[in-house]
Amino acid sequence: MTQTPTARLMDGTALARRITEESAEAAAEIRRRTGTAPCLATVLVGEDPASVTYVRMKRARCRKAGIESRQVALPASVTTAELVETVTALSQDPSVHGILLQHPVGPHIDERAAFEAIAPEKDVDGVTTHSFAAMSFGLPGFVSCTPGGIMRLLDAYGVEPAGKRAVVVGRSAILGKPAGMLLLARDATVTYCHSRTADLAAAVREADILIAAVGRPRFLTGDDLKPGAVVIDAGYNEGNVGDVDFASAATRASLITPVPGGVGPMTIAVLLAQTVEAAGRQLGTAA
Amino acid sequence: MTQTPTARLMDGTALARRITEESAEAAAEIRRRTGTAPCLATVLVGEDPASVTYVRMKRARCRKAGIESRQVALPASVTTAELVETVTALSQDPSVHGILLQHPVGPHIDERAAFEAIAPEKDVDGVTTHSFAAMSFGLPGFVSCTPGGIMRLLDAYGVEPAGKRAVVVGRSAILGKPAGMLLLARDATVTYCHSRTADLAAAVREADILIAAVGRPRFLTGDDLKPGAVVIDAGYNEGNVGDVDFASAATRASLITPVPGGVGPMTIAVLLAQTVEAAGRQLGTAA
Repeated sequence: MTQTPTARLMDGTALARRITEESAEAAAEIRRRTGTAPCLATVLVGEDPASVTYVRMKRARCRKAGIESRQVALPASVTTAELVETVTALSQDPSVHGILLQHPVGPHIDERAAFEAIAPEKDVDGVTTHSFAAMSFGLPGFVSCTPGGIMRLLDAYGVEPAGKRAVVVGRSAILGKPAGMLLLARDATVTYCHSRTADLAAAVREADILIAAVGRPRFLTGDDLKPGAVVIDAGYNEGNVGDVDFASAATRASLITPVPGGVGPMTIAVLLAQTVEAAGRQLGTAA
Repeated sequence: MTQTPTARLMDGTALARRITEESAEAAAEIRRRTGTAPCLATVLVGEDPASVTYVRMKRARCRKAGIESRQVALPASVTTAELVETVTALSQDPSVHGILLQHPVGPHIDERAAFEAIAPEKDVDGVTTHSFAAMSFGLPGFVSCTPGGIMRLLDAYGVEPAGKRAVVVGRSAILGKPAGMLLLARDATVTYCHSRTADLAAAVREADILIAAVGRPRFLTGDDLKPGAVVIDAGYNEGNVGDVDFASAATRASLITPVPGGVGPMTIAVLLAQTVEAAGRQLGTAA
């Protein structure tokens, strides 16, 4: 028997558009006051088709929002030292306000060393250890874009994390771990699950707020959910499929993000917003 | 009706002694090979009696282990800028291998700024954001001493975190948060609870491994525990009392740390071990 979806959709596309419009206004204001537009440097290593597409999308969104972007494309054969040198130069270049190093950068490269070459004040993608610790300790700094987008979605839909059980499935450095830390900073009771979790279904069923960030298509289903849970699907797998089986989850959740159109667009929106914020600070126009 | 304690004690005093003996041997070896003893700089602000006692204890243990210590005592009236300057000078001083900034440093001081002035390679107390991120991402670096001591206790008593539910009650930057991250790095399913957790008893009852790090005397009791849980009491409250009611918890737990004599001695042992390790690296004798 098919059940009727009862969950309300969390429309990431619409919210991202609103945030991007605000960023475009702020970017225009910076340009008006300083003569300089915010500038994001994008660093791409190799020609991985997904990475090429992501960078192209991000640059197109920048352009629409009045943010300049400077593309730095390096061959797949680049060494860690060369990549670190390139990123360091961008960190020191006053005409660049934000730096995006598109990952993955290739297995032969020390990705962490490359990330750490990004100056904290230009880390608009929130990938440095400095940014992670700032998120964890509630200090000023930029957030990882996808977790930051998740928090904005929760806020936009009136979901108050304080006192709620939040369960994060996945523990990557740029998604699961910072998402949990941001929720903890907002007073959620946070559980991290992962591939070694013994009884995942039991843990997921505790979630008032579920963050699926595991990268496996339709890995979680409606049966796993506590009725009324808020479901954030941060997965994006082949065939435009999330980590959550949408059809079954939508019959149990109270709120759910679609894939595509949920978390995905928010990631870029936060990247743009943080680039404009970084530019405002560096150019001395920050409010 | 009084129940008989059935839990096995985790003897932190004995384990700390063994680790300290190993550190003393390693310190002697460094001295033999380089003519220089490992040196820990301790920075104390003001005259808070507990802080004075802690620093004195740490220095006494250093002495016994053949580690030199250099005491820097600053008046309570010191400014953030002066404290940062002092710590920065120690970070640059090649005769100092490790730095301990005793906290609290006073409400008028930006403690985070002072911590961040500690060079990562001398952060033997594991308090910098760099060290926190390293713990979180499984990168090389020093751990926060109390969480590091907890992990060594678990290892010494054959407690394997992988796949277990670990619940950390408390989320401070030097205890709860890093303890959870170290457990997550060892593949536990980790839940952070805190003052805003709605149903603390339910969350605590999920714990195969419970870390009490809340700083409230006898806050958790045996009734809260899952039978057979491993209970690590990192609390140390007035009257030598932990965060866990020992008498009742010892009738439910399988393993439990006493207070005193559990986590407490381990903290200093890890501090000494990391100081010797730092000295070995800086003096070029690291294995």
